[in-house]
Amino acid sequence: MAVRAAVAGASGYAGGELLRLLLAHPEVEIGALTGNSNAGQRLGTLQPHLLPLADRVLEATTPEILAGHDVVFLALPHGQSAAVAEQLGPDVLVIDMGADFRLVDAGAWEKFYGSPHAGTWPYGLPELPGARAALEGSKRVAVPGCYPTAVSLALFPAYAASLAEPEAVIVAASGTSGAGKAAKPHLLGSEVMGSMSPYGVGGGHRHTPEIVQNLGAVAGEPVSVSFTPTLAPMPRGILATCTAKAKPEVTAESVRAAYEKAFADEPFVHLLPEGQWPATASVHGSNAVSVQVAYDADAGRIIAISALDNLAKGTAGGAVQSMNIALGLDETTGLTTIGVAP
Amino acid sequence: MAVRAAVAGASGYAGGELLRLLLAHPEVEIGALTGNSNAGQRLGTLQPHLLPLADRVLEATTPEILAGHDVVFLALPHGQSAAVAEQLGPDVLVIDMGADFRLVDAGAWEKFYGSPHAGTWPYGLPELPGARAALEGSKRVAVPGCYPTAVSLALFPAYAASLAEPEAVIVAASGTSGAGKAAKPHLLGSEVMGSMSPYGVGGGHRHTPEIVQNLGAVAGEPVSVSFTPTLAPMPRGILATCTAKAKPEVTAESVRAAYEKAFADEPFVHLLPEGQWPATASVHGSNAVSVQVAYDADAGRIIAISALDNLAKGTAGGAVQSMNIALGLDETTGLTTIGVAP
Amino acid sequence: MAVRAAVAGASGYAGGELLRLLLAHPEVEIGALTGNSNAGQRLGTLQPHLLPLADRVLEATTPEILAGHDVVFLALPHGQSAAVAEQLGPDVLVIDMGADFRLVDAGAWEKFYGSPHAGTWPYGLPELPGARAALEGSKRVAVPGCYPTAVSLALFPAYAASLAEPEAVIVAASGTSGAGKAAKPHLLGSEVMGSMSPYGVGGGHRHTPEIVQNLGAVAGEPVSVSFTPTLAPMPRGILATCTAKAKPEVTAESVRAAYEKAFADEPFVHLLPEGQWPATASVHGSNAVSVQVAYDADAGRIIAISALDNLAKGTAGGAVQSMNIALGLDETTGLTTIGVAP
Amino acid sequence: MAVRAAVAGASGYAGGELLRLLLAHPEVEIGALTGNSNAGQRLGTLQPHLLPLADRVLEATTPEILAGHDVVFLALPHGQSAAVAEQLGPDVLVIDMGADFRLVDAGAWEKFYGSPHAGTWPYGLPELPGARAALEGSKRVAVPGCYPTAVSLALFPAYAASLAEPEAVIVAASGTSGAGKAAKPHLLGSEVMGSMSPYGVGGGHRHTPEIVQNLGAVAGEPVSVSFTPTLAPMPRGILATCTAKAKPEVTAESVRAAYEKAFADEPFVHLLPEGQWPATASVHGSNAVSVQVAYDADAGRIIAISALDNLAKGTAGGAVQSMNIALGLDETTGLTTIGVAP
Repeated sequence: MAVRAAVAGASGYAGGELLRLLLAHPEVEIGALTGNSNAGQRLGTLQPHLLPLADRVLEATTPEILAGHDVVFLALPHGQSAAVAEQLGPDVLVIDMGADFRLVDAGAWEKFYGSPHAGTWPYGLPELPGARAALEGSKRVAVPGCYPTAVSLALFPAYAASLAEPEAVIVAASGTSGAGKAAKPHLLGSEVMGSMSPYGVGGGHRHTPEIVQNLGAVAGEPVSVSFTPTLAPMPRGILATCTAKAKPEVTAESVRAAYEKAFADEPFVHLLPEGQWPATASVHGSNAVSVQVAYDADAGRIIAISALDNLAKGTAGGAVQSMNIALGLDETTGLTTIGVAP
Repeated sequence: MAVRAAVAGASGYAGGELLRLLLAHPEVEIGALTGNSNAGQRLGTLQPHLLPLADRVLEATTPEILAGHDVVFLALPHGQSAAVAEQLGPDVLVIDMGADFRLVDAGAWEKFYGSPHAGTWPYGLPELPGARAALEGSKRVAVPGCYPTAVSLALFPAYAASLAEPEAVIVAASGTSGAGKAAKPHLLGSEVMGSMSPYGVGGGHRHTPEIVQNLGAVAGEPVSVSFTPTLAPMPRGILATCTAKAKPEVTAESVRAAYEKAFADEPFVHLLPEGQWPATASVHGSNAVSVQVAYDADAGRIIAISALDNLAKGTAGGAVQSMNIALGLDETTGLTTIGVAP
Repeated sequence: MAVRAAVAGASGYAGGELLRLLLAHPEVEIGALTGNSNAGQRLGTLQPHLLPLADRVLEATTPEILAGHDVVFLALPHGQSAAVAEQLGPDVLVIDMGADFRLVDAGAWEKFYGSPHAGTWPYGLPELPGARAALEGSKRVAVPGCYPTAVSLALFPAYAASLAEPEAVIVAASGTSGAGKAAKPHLLGSEVMGSMSPYGVGGGHRHTPEIVQNLGAVAGEPVSVSFTPTLAPMPRGILATCTAKAKPEVTAESVRAAYEKAFADEPFVHLLPEGQWPATASVHGSNAVSVQVAYDADAGRIIAISALDNLAKGTAGGAVQSMNIALGLDETTGLTTIGVAP
Repeated sequence: MAVRAAVAGASGYAGGELLRLLLAHPEVEIGALTGNSNAGQRLGTLQPHLLPLADRVLEATTPEILAGHDVVFLALPHGQSAAVAEQLGPDVLVIDMGADFRLVDAGAWEKFYGSPHAGTWPYGLPELPGARAALEGSKRVAVPGCYPTAVSLALFPAYAASLAEPEAVIVAASGTSGAGKAAKPHLLGSEVMGSMSPYGVGGGHRHTPEIVQNLGAVAGEPVSVSFTPTLAPMPRGILATCTAKAKPEVTAESVRAAYEKAFADEPFVHLLPEGQWPATASVHGSNAVSVQVAYDADAGRIIAISALDNLAKGTAGGAVQSMNIALGLDETTGLTTIGVAP
């Protein structure tokens, strides 16, 4: 029997990518599609790449519209998910693609988001130690941020194997779709093409506490994180260059071994052969994450680099992967490791 | 029982896209993969986006390697397909993604390609009048060029409905993958980003006689074609702006009606609602073609514009669609009308 | 003695480019800079590439602020220039970079702009027959639109030499800065990167009557114009592919000769050597226009292609060139034919 | 009297940019232009953006051709400059835009370049402490690498003010022109558009020892440097995100003060106002470097970010700036701080 799925926030980039994936999911039937400012518009206008849904019309996000589904995906601005989730009842699988339920530390939430903490849901990054078990059968899932997905997957093996000091320096480049579909002058094509620029520098980006949380949980101790995101002239993709101070005994071999072990059974994380480095183009549209790692003996650091599609594995693909686990489906159902390149 | 498919020329862009589609095709099992200059290399190095095939190694293109398949796709430089096809025997479905068997007129072939004409195979653009029937059960298919696909689909309804004079002016923009994977200075990223430039101007492009052939066959008289291709700063996609002088009695309504009729039952050609225009991003990675048409009464011309993915519907998707028809499978098997956007 | 110049509308792309050029102009001193919605903001925030002006603050556009200058450039939304110009008095050189005073035909203005016609000023495309003389000493200049500049320069030699029938088909690709700096969803980087799309198809673009006017004046008879603009994934540049039906007696040699004659003494229009085609990258930031022409005997058409920088020669550079002529300075003062490439 | 300048290696990107700048330099007359594989070709074909030089023809790089100039710029592959320089005599100003004479440590040279060390010339980064004085009157200049220019300018103030521990982690993104004009498959437009990828990870990039040298000289002690370069989908520009572990007593104010002091009198380094961050688009074509700095108290690191044009200030602009100093001209002659944006 098909899983009936609703999507609240179907007009944005995350919602559009989710629909792209759900259309290809053999167990899912797409139900209600909602959007507030865009209610009443054809999806063919808002998401012209989703031809099979072109004649669907967005509805307003109300409890009545969202009722009667097995799964409800929330692609809403932060702060709005809790109210919607409460109305859905405990038996509906609710998957929040926003930030509201990602953080354990209420103080960190309030510091970075400036609003009361709504709570903490099982974290939808199954590759992290212990995360998969927490997702099985869960009725609530907090989908990770795109940067935390890229960074945590790149660095957790080093911490899991006790190879790294609790001192990480991370610089990540993201495609512009990560900034959303709201029209802002600095996101115009004229501004972003041909330009690289940083933002949220110095610890100010809201994904920082999420990275701190993930790495600290694996390390078993607080990890200091310097995180600098940059905007790159491409529509999709994250390249995360993640470095951590190496512990004294580390060797290139011990680093390689730790990463091979961490990803040996992971269907979506691909440790590249030595000598090959990730490129975001290779994972365009795919749920795969390409990872490579090096040990720089001169600098005494481990450099782990990951590439993923911020909308796919970084948001909507991660959401579907978690849905599969929560519902007891095969984790890879409806997801691909094949990119669209060049 | 699975259809066993070999790909000769698996290291290039057309071959890579074909493999991407075949991996998603439920009836196909991927067999031999060959490439001459790249024989012996891992596909993971050559096509890093095709993770499920990463450990496959390219073999040399020999009759022995290609033997024992139900379908052999040829993604070879022009002039090489005939020799390979002859060795494969008449019972193997051979699908040539190159130019060798597209043209009916041997003189046009020799003028534009400078070599002896190899022959003419059923033409793999099923949407053209009569083409689908010729493909059914055929053991040989000539996949159309990417520009002729975009242009013929945009303009044939006007000629089929006798709305246009035999005088077409076409300007098309293509992504750089249309120029192939061979490293040439003018195709460097530094050169193409931020730049639009024409090439093959004045009737010199090799796709011109193919367009002339297709439009003329539908019009039932020779059609004069002015075709100017341009290189656009994007990896994929063709936007073809196709205009034809309108016959005196033409109206906006008669034009619209002709296009609605032509595409009413086509699974992959999507006539957009009035007021919406095609964009290549919407068909990125998809087998769909977006078409829109207008009648400019002041200029007395019909303007039909199509957008497609040059590697998908323009090459590899068209090849798979034709394979489906030739083998008696449902025409849409393994193909999608969903683009990867933004 | 320096020419004192004010710029009304200094926060947009046209205004920014104008300031870039005026900063390099040896005879100009930059005076008042105004902008309505941005009044009070630092130019360093609005135009961060103009470091020498970083600490200048925009003022509101008032007669008092604009008074006391030798030249006032208007980079305002259409419909606003007439009111400002009237207040400036007849002795001030007023150069309107908007559309208000370009068209001679009041009916065409009203049809395309939907507001009363403000009048007609000398047209700032000195390369057109007769245009330079009309600009000398003039106190009012209407700067041409970017597309009309590209198209008129590409096609007028064919009409001036009576080589072309009055039937032109034009397709042009423009960088996104041509659409301005106002934040609109379809101009987001996520939407435009990797995408080509048309707009204003079927004769609807406001530059159509201006092209009709320019070509008709040279031809001495009405010219039918089919004009299709497309948006290309680059910040700057126009590539205009302009074709006209050739008169019967035309030859490749007569076409070449006409173009060589037309541009022989032009400092900014560069007819490329035979075999070389224009690319927008080559004129990035430059006031030069690259032109090439071919005669397609099979199609019976002349194909003339031009590349220019829409913000430079297409707007601000054209404005400065006209200012030089109007003031009696050397026409090339402060302008360059050197592009910034790659 | 004009300075007569020759350029050896005029067909590449560095040579082209140098010519662009020299054409605008009021004291320079362009003399011999050489290139080995391209000797005999028109510059109009090789560098179509340099219209004033279109009819110049490249000559072979020989001592006779290079004789009789006041300045000879060498834009040659590494390892070739020493032989050419020796033939030029001690009175000619020789400015090497390659790597041959940048490093002091012969062992580092041999480790990273695999050839004998040619020597060390005064280092053409005048903003570094002591560097300007060494350039005055010098007849030999080693132009820095593009990454070392961006990184050293971003981080030296922190070391000069003793605010940083000798432990730097740097991730930089470069436009593709930094990889040169030689056609390589991974640099094709199809490959780089839409993709970010790292290279030379783990300390392997040849600019690493140059960064180590510069920072160590300012710090007065060896600085450990983790440097990761990445390739960004844009033709020009470097964005360098440079972090250093902060000393215990550091505050946001002391960091800001150090940077204000370091750049107070620098004509080309622009410390942005607080809250504004560099973007490569703002310095496109300009000799300016935009810098901003933050202190992340949570992570205990200083984050300094610089943006420059890799071909301008990062190569050819730096070369001209050094030439000006060496010849006793005003350091800013012929150079601009105005970018070409958007």
